[in-house]
Amino acid sequence: MTQTTQTKRPFDVLSRNIGKSVSVRLKGAQVFKGTFLGYDPHWNISLAEAEQCRNHRRVTLGKLILRGNNVLYVSELDHD
Amino acid sequence: MTQTTQTKRPFDVLSRNIGKSVSVRLKGAQVFKGTFLGYDPHWNISLAEAEQCRNHRRVTLGKLILRGNNVLYVSELDHD
Amino acid sequence: MTQTTQTKRPFDVLSRNIGKSVSVRLKGAQVFKGTFLGYDPHWNISLAEAEQCRNHRRVTLGKLILRGNNVLYVSELDHD
Amino acid sequence: MTQTTQTKRPFDVLSRNIGKSVSVRLKGAQVFKGTFLGYDPHWNISLAEAEQCRNHRRVTLGKLILRGNNVLYVSELDHD
Amino acid sequence: MTQTTQTKRPFDVLSRNIGKSVSVRLKGAQVFKGTFLGYDPHWNISLAEAEQCRNHRRVTLGKLILRGNNVLYVSELDHD
Amino acid sequence: MTQTTQTKRPFDVLSRNIGKSVSVRLKGAQVFKGTFLGYDPHWNISLAEAEQCRNHRRVTLGKLILRGNNVLYVSELDHD
Amino acid sequence: MTQTTQTKRPFDVLSRNIGKSVSVRLKGAQVFKGTFLGYDPHWNISLAEAEQCRNHRRVTLGKLILRGNNVLYVSELDHD
Repeated sequence: MTQTTQTKRPFDVLSRNIGKSVSVRLKGAQVFKGTFLGYDPHWNISLAEAEQCRNHRRVTLGKLILRGNNVLYVSELDHD
Repeated sequence: MTQTTQTKRPFDVLSRNIGKSVSVRLKGAQVFKGTFLGYDPHWNISLAEAEQCRNHRRVTLGKLILRGNNVLYVSELDHD
Repeated sequence: MTQTTQTKRPFDVLSRNIGKSVSVRLKGAQVFKGTFLGYDPHWNISLAEAEQCRNHRRVTLGKLILRGNNVLYVSELDHD
Repeated sequence: MTQTTQTKRPFDVLSRNIGKSVSVRLKGAQVFKGTFLGYDPHWNISLAEAEQCRNHRRVTLGKLILRGNNVLYVSELDHD
Repeated sequence: MTQTTQTKRPFDVLSRNIGKSVSVRLKGAQVFKGTFLGYDPHWNISLAEAEQCRNHRRVTLGKLILRGNNVLYVSELDHD
Repeated sequence: MTQTTQTKRPFDVLSRNIGKSVSVRLKGAQVFKGTFLGYDPHWNISLAEAEQCRNHRRVTLGKLILRGNNVLYVSELDHD
Repeated sequence: MTQTTQTKRPFDVLSRNIGKSVSVRLKGAQVFKGTFLGYDPHWNISLAEAEQCRNHRRVTLGKLILRGNNVLYVSELDHD
């Protein structure tokens, strides 16, 4: 693969969010927010103080371990 | 992968729940609760005293072995 | 993986059911009951005296070999 | 894996049906009957004198090679 | 795997159809007919003089390369 | 695999179309036409001067990189 | 694989877009636009200044990491 020096690979971008607030969207359109604890190469994701956001309601879930197979994307909650 | 020391990888968080009450949600929206007996790297999960929660009814299933492929997430039942 | 000594991994729990009556539920909600003959790491499952349970009717299928990919869970039929 | 001596693993049960009449059900609910010629570890299946059973009609297909990925189960046609 | 000498494994049956007319059915129920040019272990299939059969109409496609992942089965067109 | 000398394996047929006009159909029924730039063993496909054909309209997309997982088939646009 | 010298393999075409504006379409028809930061062999994609385009509205997402499994295609935004 011939990527230039300006490349920022997906998992490098992901790892910079550890300890920060992120939003994780699943294939089935569910959205989870929480403090990003960690991930692995399969996109399995652990969140602390996780909340699921549904129809303007928030369900508190505590520590949450999401199976990577279902993830659509991760985005920053505190972006500029 | 360049994760910092504060990282708590998904399976590390998962393994701390062994022997505790957990909630396992599947892709098809089914929810199972029970005592978390163990797991493997494919997310296969064994529960004791398992119950399936459907429409406010609970179906008792005893020992249950869930195939990992269907799991959406595992969350703590006794979170703060 | 740092599982404690109290861990009972999914396939260990599964193997203890060999020769016993089990219920196998597939992703498509079909339920099969029978004597558990064996399995392999892909969750392929062989049953003797298998029956499919549909709308309170039972269809007798004899020896049955289920492809693991479709399995949702296996539960004990004679749980306490 | 700690299976006892009474274990009959899925592919052992499957291989005993070679040369016999079997019923193969696919995920999409299609049912094929025929003489079981062989299989491979991916559940690819070859049948001779295959027929597809649809709405009480039978469509003759001759030699048929089914892709394993779609198989739900194989059952004996001449079970007791 | 303990298959007897009468076994005819799926890809052996498939390879005997090269150069002959075959029917390829996909998961999405599409049917393609043509001269069977070749295949690979992933069920990728090449056909010459391919036609797609839809609602009693035939669409001519010339040389066609089908991705194996979508294949349901291959059957002989000139079976007895 | 015992293929005869007349075999033309899928990727051999595919590679002969490089630099030519092809039609790529995806699982979701979308059709893309363009000059075939290249492919890899996962069926990832690059097209130049790509157009998507929808309801008799054509949307110009320029250079396009299609993920192989979604491909149904590739056919020649200039077949006889 | 016997590709000619004129071949431009998919990931070569993809890597030339790093630092440029791209459009990423997912299987579920969602479209994301942004500056292409990087990718990996699984089609995981990182975008800066990402926007999701829905019904003529644009939702700002900041830095975004898309899981490759869901990608349909990547196209150039500034094509000729």
